[in-house]
Amino acid sequence: MNLSQLPTPCLLLERGILIRNLATMRDAIARHPGVALRPHMKTAKSVEVALLAGERCITVSTLAEAAHFAAHGFSDILYAACVTPEKLAAVAPLNAAGAAVIVVTDDPGMAAKIAAEPAPPRTLIEIDCGEGRSGLAPDDPTLLDIGARLGSSLAGVMTHAGHSYAGRSAADMRAIAEVERNAVVTAANRLRAAGMAAPIVSMGSSPTALHAAHLDGISEIRPGVYMFGDLFQAEIGTHSLDDIAVTVLASVIGRRPDRHGLVLDAGGLALSKDRSTEAAPKDYGFGLVLDTAGRRSFGDTIVRRAYQEHGVVACDPALPFPDVPIGGRVRIAPNHVCMTAAAYDRYYVLDGGDTVADVWTRVNGW
Amino acid sequence: MNLSQLPTPCLLLERGILIRNLATMRDAIARHPGVALRPHMKTAKSVEVALLAGERCITVSTLAEAAHFAAHGFSDILYAACVTPEKLAAVAPLNAAGAAVIVVTDDPGMAAKIAAEPAPPRTLIEIDCGEGRSGLAPDDPTLLDIGARLGSSLAGVMTHAGHSYAGRSAADMRAIAEVERNAVVTAANRLRAAGMAAPIVSMGSSPTALHAAHLDGISEIRPGVYMFGDLFQAEIGTHSLDDIAVTVLASVIGRRPDRHGLVLDAGGLALSKDRSTEAAPKDYGFGLVLDTAGRRSFGDTIVRRAYQEHGVVACDPALPFPDVPIGGRVRIAPNHVCMTAAAYDRYYVLDGGDTVADVWTRVNGW
Repeated sequence: MNLSQLPTPCLLLERGILIRNLATMRDAIARHPGVALRPHMKTAKSVEVALLAGERCITVSTLAEAAHFAAHGFSDILYAACVTPEKLAAVAPLNAAGAAVIVVTDDPGMAAKIAAEPAPPRTLIEIDCGEGRSGLAPDDPTLLDIGARLGSSLAGVMTHAGHSYAGRSAADMRAIAEVERNAVVTAANRLRAAGMAAPIVSMGSSPTALHAAHLDGISEIRPGVYMFGDLFQAEIGTHSLDDIAVTVLASVIGRRPDRHGLVLDAGGLALSKDRSTEAAPKDYGFGLVLDTAGRRSFGDTIVRRAYQEHGVVACDPALPFPDVPIGGRVRIAPNHVCMTAAAYDRYYVLDGGDTVADVWTRVNGW
Repeated sequence: MNLSQLPTPCLLLERGILIRNLATMRDAIARHPGVALRPHMKTAKSVEVALLAGERCITVSTLAEAAHFAAHGFSDILYAACVTPEKLAAVAPLNAAGAAVIVVTDDPGMAAKIAAEPAPPRTLIEIDCGEGRSGLAPDDPTLLDIGARLGSSLAGVMTHAGHSYAGRSAADMRAIAEVERNAVVTAANRLRAAGMAAPIVSMGSSPTALHAAHLDGISEIRPGVYMFGDLFQAEIGTHSLDDIAVTVLASVIGRRPDRHGLVLDAGGLALSKDRSTEAAPKDYGFGLVLDTAGRRSFGDTIVRRAYQEHGVVACDPALPFPDVPIGGRVRIAPNHVCMTAAAYDRYYVLDGGDTVADVWTRVNGW
């Protein structure tokens, strides 16, 4: 099967770029001896991608991912959102079957419930390093209470500097990485000073993982989006535009030379309504339009408006009207690949050419 | 099964509200003798909902919907996005099996390709009534050329006033409905004056379907979102807040009394990144938080920030901190239900109470 035979819209994955991105992160982490890479599978949601990443331990964002990766032989799985009693009950059979799912909490009541389980899972306490999403401040007095309630199920601490995405330079990322590192190490040391064990000290987003000056005291790091990359990550300097491994293949369904525009069969559902590049140096609308080989032949041609199934394209005014007929195909680089990829149940895997080399499934939903 | 046993996030559908919304639209269309209701299934994507709607003809937004509804016995299906050669080839076997899929084009080259099919499908010419998305202006000279090329496969004209969503009052909607009606009737009359047949004269969005003063010359109307409703439609006056039939059931995973906030397990994937209420009179963030019975017990409590799997809730400052524990459930009314529902493969159907009365599947993807 080749690109002209695929039903559109669909999701393409360039294996060569993926492998290069995986190597870049592995090399970046190797600068920090003793720090493990626990890749976050929330973006890829694919067993094949996790196998290429090649790490013993992984991170997941949903119980559906936890169950899927466990069923495919993964163990040492960090479920990185705070657990509830119902989700704890769902983790138990996975762990009984050997998945070794680690859970997270920032709540004393939940800590007591975890410890009261017949076979309590290893548990991390979530620390807020400044994002203001979830977790305790590193100096929160509750930290020691939660640690004490967890007892022997306490396995350490974790944090996520999602606010690193507000950075716009390597220096910004380096500074936020140090705040992130310091927050979680401070919390770990407070637990240890109180006589508790905290072997896992976990941090990480793709920007901070790549840019951290040092990771003293950190045991593992959890980047995810780096595997695929996207326009937003390119805008904030995590990687270049050439490092985007996942694109949406779309068909031209309308040609408007009168307004220097095209209409594609990829709209809000196919691209997502994520507008993260709106606040970035360059606003790509709902995505950057590339040719079928993934090259920027159309310059700054972007999806300007996204209806449910229609993407209205504004062609680069500096270039002639694109010579793509009705039914002709283009690729769209996404603003935020985690959001875009979630609309698809599979990747069509390419090795640089026009031929589909593989089809890999995704585990969506919850 | 009841609400406390469902895995979260998941999608709830109140059958009573759905049935009421269906009746409201049916009554609105009944004011216009001779006008058929061809409900757009792009929002519900569910056979059970289409059966409740009870119309002989339907509209779909994807080939996946067309194939799904055809497989469940529906015929007379309008596929309402401009067709390509590849999609035309996919329609052929559906029609050979009796689906009677109608296609749409606004391109002379495609019109010739349609007419050259062994068994050309009925075809509508798309008219742009001012939205600037796709379709020809009603007075475009190309209209007659396309009609002539289609020959006996020409079945009429269609338009969609998506810009009705920019309206903010019943008077606005009435005015846009008249522009929509006039555009498509003008185009139909031009074809007829040239000796061509245009039995189908199709228009419609939910706001214009409800508010049109008259529909002279229109043969059918295609609203979709009215079945479920959402915050945006409530803001522009299509219906009231009490008419929203679909909500997301979420669990509290974090409690932040210090910042009068909650954290939910429903973020950008569970709610979508749609921010349509940003430009509406009232900005609901990423959704309005309701209690498990769907009541506004929490006032103006909204999901203020949406991460991939985390929804950060800002509680109504005028009310006490909500008494919902970790693992406790809330419902979230969506900004734009077409986008939100697409993340789920099923509806948990309720009859006003706490018990799941039915489970209906959705046909997502392409």
